[in-house]
Amino acid sequence: MDTLKRIYRDSLALLTDFYEITMAYGYWKTGMADRDSVFHVSFRQNPFGGGYTIACGLAYVIEYLENFAFDKSDLEYLAAARDRAGKPLLEKEFLQYLGKMKLQCDIDAVPEGTVVFPQEPMLRIRGPLIQCQLLETILLNILNFQSLIATKAARVALAAEGAPVLEFGLRRAQGIDGGLSASRAAYIGGCSATSNVLAGKLFGIPIAGTHSHSWVMAFPTEREAFEEYARIMPDNCIFLVDTYQTLQGVRLAAETAKGLRARGSEMTGIRLDSGDLASLSIEARKILDEEGFPNAKIVASNEMDEYIIESLKHQGAKIDLWGVGTKLTTAYDQPALGGVYKLSALRAEDGEWEYKMKVSDHGAKTSTPGILQVRRFQRDGKNIADAILEDGARPAGDCIIVDPGDPAHKDTIAAEAEHTDLLVPVMREGKTVYTSPALAEIRTSAAENLGQFPPAIKRFIYPHLYTVGLEIGLYRKKITLSLKNAKKKSEDLT
Amino acid sequence: MDTLKRIYRDSLALLTDFYEITMAYGYWKTGMADRDSVFHVSFRQNPFGGGYTIACGLAYVIEYLENFAFDKSDLEYLAAARDRAGKPLLEKEFLQYLGKMKLQCDIDAVPEGTVVFPQEPMLRIRGPLIQCQLLETILLNILNFQSLIATKAARVALAAEGAPVLEFGLRRAQGIDGGLSASRAAYIGGCSATSNVLAGKLFGIPIAGTHSHSWVMAFPTEREAFEEYARIMPDNCIFLVDTYQTLQGVRLAAETAKGLRARGSEMTGIRLDSGDLASLSIEARKILDEEGFPNAKIVASNEMDEYIIESLKHQGAKIDLWGVGTKLTTAYDQPALGGVYKLSALRAEDGEWEYKMKVSDHGAKTSTPGILQVRRFQRDGKNIADAILEDGARPAGDCIIVDPGDPAHKDTIAAEAEHTDLLVPVMREGKTVYTSPALAEIRTSAAENLGQFPPAIKRFIYPHLYTVGLEIGLYRKKITLSLKNAKKKSEDLT
Repeated sequence: MDTLKRIYRDSLALLTDFYEITMAYGYWKTGMADRDSVFHVSFRQNPFGGGYTIACGLAYVIEYLENFAFDKSDLEYLAAARDRAGKPLLEKEFLQYLGKMKLQCDIDAVPEGTVVFPQEPMLRIRGPLIQCQLLETILLNILNFQSLIATKAARVALAAEGAPVLEFGLRRAQGIDGGLSASRAAYIGGCSATSNVLAGKLFGIPIAGTHSHSWVMAFPTEREAFEEYARIMPDNCIFLVDTYQTLQGVRLAAETAKGLRARGSEMTGIRLDSGDLASLSIEARKILDEEGFPNAKIVASNEMDEYIIESLKHQGAKIDLWGVGTKLTTAYDQPALGGVYKLSALRAEDGEWEYKMKVSDHGAKTSTPGILQVRRFQRDGKNIADAILEDGARPAGDCIIVDPGDPAHKDTIAAEAEHTDLLVPVMREGKTVYTSPALAEIRTSAAENLGQFPPAIKRFIYPHLYTVGLEIGLYRKKITLSLKNAKKKSEDLT
Repeated sequence: MDTLKRIYRDSLALLTDFYEITMAYGYWKTGMADRDSVFHVSFRQNPFGGGYTIACGLAYVIEYLENFAFDKSDLEYLAAARDRAGKPLLEKEFLQYLGKMKLQCDIDAVPEGTVVFPQEPMLRIRGPLIQCQLLETILLNILNFQSLIATKAARVALAAEGAPVLEFGLRRAQGIDGGLSASRAAYIGGCSATSNVLAGKLFGIPIAGTHSHSWVMAFPTEREAFEEYARIMPDNCIFLVDTYQTLQGVRLAAETAKGLRARGSEMTGIRLDSGDLASLSIEARKILDEEGFPNAKIVASNEMDEYIIESLKHQGAKIDLWGVGTKLTTAYDQPALGGVYKLSALRAEDGEWEYKMKVSDHGAKTSTPGILQVRRFQRDGKNIADAILEDGARPAGDCIIVDPGDPAHKDTIAAEAEHTDLLVPVMREGKTVYTSPALAEIRTSAAENLGQFPPAIKRFIYPHLYTVGLEIGLYRKKITLSLKNAKKKSEDLT
């Protein structure tokens, strides 16, 4: 992708939580640094009270990992860290070790644009314990945010029912990259274009934009503002009509467009950015039709999200393109996806894998042990259920899927059912073995992927819950380990 | 600050909405590019339903502007833009003009860490119309987000009542810079440290961190995990105690700390990250006291925000340090500040300033015309009211402040009242004339600044509204212009 390299200087290895560094130091000191380990990235709930999530951010992850290195200034910074006693916190030899570190991890991940569900690993990393630990924060940062925004965009696009959605949230996005990576994820999720020019340059997303209120205000009259705009960019005319009085603005746009037509060009349309967009769009449509511009598009913006779009459509609004900003690029109603990163297996000194799980009083927060894969079962081209299972497992006969939150709830998938394993090889021993598809392809596959699920999971309110559970063999191992841990705990204090 | 230069490669000139470019092209084509213009950045409502906002982000803005330039690849990208007819949208001569553009703007802004209120300009820019227009998006992006987070942090710090707040939101922040600039703004707003190592390196913020659940899980028992940690980092020990069963974890931490003490070191404390933090912290405090560790700190984390901290304190929780992540770095309950950028004056061809305003059916969305300043009046070291007035205006006699939303509501400030003008010179003709204070100084001044306001404006629920209005002379001009605009509009269509 080369985006990070084009945007950021040097390494971003220090873009991590400090405890990853102190733990790395601890693993190094205890001789555990090279212990073979497995971690998974997963999340516990779909965002926005919805029924699905779109995985996004993998290309960023790959590029980050390909460029991972502690540079001299990073090591100098770490060398200055002091403990409470005023002594250096980290030994010089450890810093030298970091300086020479080359990533050797294996990564398997769900391709970008894939629909994923709670508890399912989106990414699996296997490698030296110290390296897997150091990568926790950045993997979560990238995957959490981009998946969140891709999912939001998919919801907005769904509400727009095929009408193009333009993303223009940069001015209220959360920082520079909050804007850039949001534009990328929004496009993958289903937006048609962005206003963000740098995102256009770096990612090849179509860009769009004409003029704002200040253009109109800069001229003595709205009429002059429109006429000058039409003269200068005859084939890129969307007139913003609400600087003073909206319907007067629409009439002026139509008058201007007549002159434009006489000169051989057609206006693209008008944009409404305030007021009651339902009634204004209906009135504006009438005016445009009456004035001979039935093909002029009406773009609407102003605090749009999937709910407002759905409501405006329900009210019969005549809107052809939707401009969505703040609510999309910040995922306003839920601005974070709660992705987590859990150690699930560690190879013991005798070479055997030990499965690991984080126990919690909340069942949903208890992690799943093992080296995992996600198997998606299909019937007649539609997805019917997902099983989380041990990688490489071949359940004999039918696949029984257990809901870990409600083990009485089981689904049985016939042995001969078609299926796809979602986690695919991305890196092997630190080398990339995966080619990210072009962004437009990812966008297409996200839409196709969503199309293979029942519409009921895509409802905004009380969506149907798609079946996801643990393959019964894995479920049994999880229960056994859970009991063993409880026993071990009670022994720990004796 | 040199942060952007250290993080980002080359120019970020294309980090803008495309309509800024098309309008810039329009101004260039119409010969209006060099018209002297004035824009202001302001916002309409305090975030989080609160009574104030902390201005933040200026140092980023300055650095962005100092490095502003379209590079060759930017111009090549723009040269490829096409209109609907398939013709180049922008003329080659315009791109050459952009390539040679040197910023010549004057900027006046409120120093970072200053308390500001709705309608008040946080930043004023004056310069060639084309340049002011091009800078709209990035000014809003930086100031909106950093002010939002600084304000959130101030609220969290207020709830913590002097107890240190540690920011550790990177893993769920909105992108790379969403994390970095949030760490910076959170520190300015009142956090004591961050987990974000790169933010520590770039901004000099203290960093903090010890270990996570995966450290504990990587060892055969919790006991071994704690003991190894204590052995390796004896003077940086905060034991995370909830990997298995929290109070057992606390007892184990105390046992480990006894060994540590025998070797001459004291544990720093423990961290609680799940469960009922009120009762767990009270129980943990008892155990630690009984075991001889009255000075061991209790750190609490897990979806903290100002409301939860306030509630836990109310419940008698024994928590000494607060770890705040997602809710702070994404400003979870309101993830965007709605800052706007409005043209307020444009010099006519005859050299006279023409004042400009954007009219709206919503009074609060109507912008204020003119070249503005914010004057803060003080009595006995406390702030009593702010007046928005014309820059350089010297109201004869008392200053009458009018609430533009309710003109019957006026305040009169005695002519001899002490006052400070908030907008200070930052750039003159594109050259920086302002030195940003060190980050720690900005943090201190934010706290001092807040201290000069009545506590009632800092309540989380129904805060008192501090008096902000237009100086009566400016108010009269706004009304006059508003009536003139309405007349002009009605003539525009005749």
